[in-house]
Amino acid sequence: MTDAIKTKKSDDLIGWYNNVLIESGMMDFSAVKGFPVYRPYGYEIWERIVEYLNKRFRELGVKNAYFPLLIPESILSKESQHIKGFTPEVAWVTKGGDRDLDERLAIRPTSETIMYDSYSKWIKSYRDLPMLINQWNTVVRWETKETRLLLRGREVLWQEGHCVFETAKEADANAIAMTKIYRDVMEKILAVPVFYGMKSEAEKFPGAEKTYTVETATPNNFMIQSATSHNLGQNFSKAFEIKFIDRQNNWQYVYQTSWGISMRSIAAMVMVHGDDNGLVLPPAVAPIQVVIIPIVKDDKKKEKILVYALEIKKKLDAMGIRAHLDDRDDQSPGWKFHQYDLLGVPIRLDIGEREEGSRTVSAKLRFDGSKDTFEEKNLIEIADKLGDIQSQMFENARLSASKKVEEISDKAEFIRKLKKDEKIVKAAWCGREECEGKIKEETGAISRCIPLDNEKMISEKCVYCGEHAIYNAYFSHTY
Amino acid sequence: MTDAIKTKKSDDLIGWYNNVLIESGMMDFSAVKGFPVYRPYGYEIWERIVEYLNKRFRELGVKNAYFPLLIPESILSKESQHIKGFTPEVAWVTKGGDRDLDERLAIRPTSETIMYDSYSKWIKSYRDLPMLINQWNTVVRWETKETRLLLRGREVLWQEGHCVFETAKEADANAIAMTKIYRDVMEKILAVPVFYGMKSEAEKFPGAEKTYTVETATPNNFMIQSATSHNLGQNFSKAFEIKFIDRQNNWQYVYQTSWGISMRSIAAMVMVHGDDNGLVLPPAVAPIQVVIIPIVKDDKKKEKILVYALEIKKKLDAMGIRAHLDDRDDQSPGWKFHQYDLLGVPIRLDIGEREEGSRTVSAKLRFDGSKDTFEEKNLIEIADKLGDIQSQMFENARLSASKKVEEISDKAEFIRKLKKDEKIVKAAWCGREECEGKIKEETGAISRCIPLDNEKMISEKCVYCGEHAIYNAYFSHTY
Repeated sequence: MTDAIKTKKSDDLIGWYNNVLIESGMMDFSAVKGFPVYRPYGYEIWERIVEYLNKRFRELGVKNAYFPLLIPESILSKESQHIKGFTPEVAWVTKGGDRDLDERLAIRPTSETIMYDSYSKWIKSYRDLPMLINQWNTVVRWETKETRLLLRGREVLWQEGHCVFETAKEADANAIAMTKIYRDVMEKILAVPVFYGMKSEAEKFPGAEKTYTVETATPNNFMIQSATSHNLGQNFSKAFEIKFIDRQNNWQYVYQTSWGISMRSIAAMVMVHGDDNGLVLPPAVAPIQVVIIPIVKDDKKKEKILVYALEIKKKLDAMGIRAHLDDRDDQSPGWKFHQYDLLGVPIRLDIGEREEGSRTVSAKLRFDGSKDTFEEKNLIEIADKLGDIQSQMFENARLSASKKVEEISDKAEFIRKLKKDEKIVKAAWCGREECEGKIKEETGAISRCIPLDNEKMISEKCVYCGEHAIYNAYFSHTY
Repeated sequence: MTDAIKTKKSDDLIGWYNNVLIESGMMDFSAVKGFPVYRPYGYEIWERIVEYLNKRFRELGVKNAYFPLLIPESILSKESQHIKGFTPEVAWVTKGGDRDLDERLAIRPTSETIMYDSYSKWIKSYRDLPMLINQWNTVVRWETKETRLLLRGREVLWQEGHCVFETAKEADANAIAMTKIYRDVMEKILAVPVFYGMKSEAEKFPGAEKTYTVETATPNNFMIQSATSHNLGQNFSKAFEIKFIDRQNNWQYVYQTSWGISMRSIAAMVMVHGDDNGLVLPPAVAPIQVVIIPIVKDDKKKEKILVYALEIKKKLDAMGIRAHLDDRDDQSPGWKFHQYDLLGVPIRLDIGEREEGSRTVSAKLRFDGSKDTFEEKNLIEIADKLGDIQSQMFENARLSASKKVEEISDKAEFIRKLKKDEKIVKAAWCGREECEGKIKEETGAISRCIPLDNEKMISEKCVYCGEHAIYNAYFSHTY
């Protein structure tokens, strides 16, 4: 454990988590409760998520745009379920300069309403469809519960995609396709395994017909929702009069989806991979992939060592590896080792007299502490090693996640294990809102995810109420 | 003039300008006054500006971050000039959900105050400097004047950089260096020539010691400010107690800069290059650089033509050119010609029976209407042509801008030409706020820019008040 990280991960997960985010310089609190600061080291991780998703979105023909920050109350209120869901947590602008506004304006808690007001003007014909638009922005939701960095805040960094289709089938296919892209960014980029599937009636998005979700198991057997994708059906198109002339020359209401991933994806990554020494970053998102530390014991050898270290750095740069040479004189190698462990840099290269003499580098891998040596002439192997680390981190996390889940059909055991967070529980369930309410009341846990595939049912009866079960579902606490 | 563009540029510049932005699908009005919608075609132009600037910023070591949207009134008020400048146009959040807030929160009109509150915690030593941070976001300023798309709005898309240095000299050098990067993005990417220099005392940023500016001449002899860069001196560091231990072990206040470019840069580009048929986009930012239109007169030849057109498209794709093949059946070639003229696509390729037969393409250039033919085997020449168009558009605009400026030393002529917007006027000036106020009152024009280079003075006396002139300055109306 470094000096900076005062809490052990296994003792107090949230205490450790806050400690790591702050001390690594990823995040900070600001003067406004629930509004975090994304410092450069944290924001760069988000930028790599953005880069990957922009590429995937573009391949589907989705284009970026930007819509207003503020939404008039009259427009926010047009879809009845939606406004009911969001009213308690809207931040209202009531004054512009010295003047009271005629109508108060909501800071967007999400942009369905303000975007669909425009869509209703733009869409006239099936020729205008599909319309596939995304925006990267922040939304504000006035959380009354305790806020937590990246997990629950009043200002949330995310993207929201809003697509429009001719048919119900296309809309549902799009909502599912986006869930799979979210699964990919979690698993391939953040090396975080996910459970994905549908939300229950009680947990779906206000105004949606179906909500699909991507969830991650935390070390303490909670599940975190990183991304959701909604099949909105015609709920909003009817409220906003988004109609088109179809191929048979009839007016029809469009079918819509909306989907988003937030900075919670990063929270999941930190929790799954970090350890008592700090962050452990997957190479795909690490701002620094390889750090080079010169070890000078004899000052007469200093110049030779530094020249060699710089050569290594340049070779890594040329391979497209994000390498950093820390040649500061005023910090000891030992201090630097701790510092880059805290920052979660995947590979550390130590370069001293011996390495310079033998034209090698001594490597230490952050994720498993293993050591290795590379020859200067085979430095390209470091690129392969970064790929290996990425795969291995994912595999380790997948194994660990699978052990967290237990299939349970006994009610008493279901309740006991959920109450104590002993396991994430998978069980046969009736899916009724009333039953979910009672489970929540008794255990504090809720349904997180209903797998999409046709799985073998664990039981014919709901684990909790004994009524007819219609699918399996995962249950856990959540942040 | 296309049907969509109903106003001639020379008759009514702003009428034409709005018409082009809306009809091309770049921008739209929203349900909230002064809050525009950036549709995908407009937003993609902004994304190319972002991409270029991120690269330039990174080369200087500037890193991106994200700070809170909302600023408590007590923090916004800490620097006295700053709050005085911004108070009249702040949008205030006063309610979260159903609860009145204890302290009202400003939507950021700019982020100096909320960022420097964090900086004061982070900066302790000269080792923490320079600190070079940028953020891409939107700001809200409650404009009471008439709002105009991209030119004057209540929500403004921009970036704001905030750098911290040990010395006054470094800060001023940084403020000037950023102005030059802004000049480059305007000239090299948007093909828009600029005048750059300093702002007068009356026109500088509230809280700055000096403001540098990048200005563009419009067709009607106005000047538009696209970007500014401020040397803040120690004004904010004293207000926010941002201190560091210097190399001599003394506590010192830091020196700071802030700098930003907004979507006004795009407004300047549209005004300078557009014509009565719509947008004329420089290839560097055009979402579509080359559009291919199949011309089918004989249905029996259709397949051959389409196969050939697709081959051409694929070859252009492979060269990294943003090419679009419009093979829709339900629109005529004539309609498409008008449409892509409106969209300002730099090169149109027509492909019919003749072109397919001779393995050529017929090109029409949007910016000057000239025609050309390329052989399939020399298609790479189209990449060169895009480069030529970019240079030529800039050269044409530079020539045109230089003709708009007249050096004047006679007071009556100065007043007459400014009143009628006959010219942008360059004149010797005393620089006094009182004198500037009187010029504004009498002509409606203000000083826009004081060139940085040691120019030969036009006169020893101020053109307006006859006092001792201290520099030359440009005067014009502005949006």
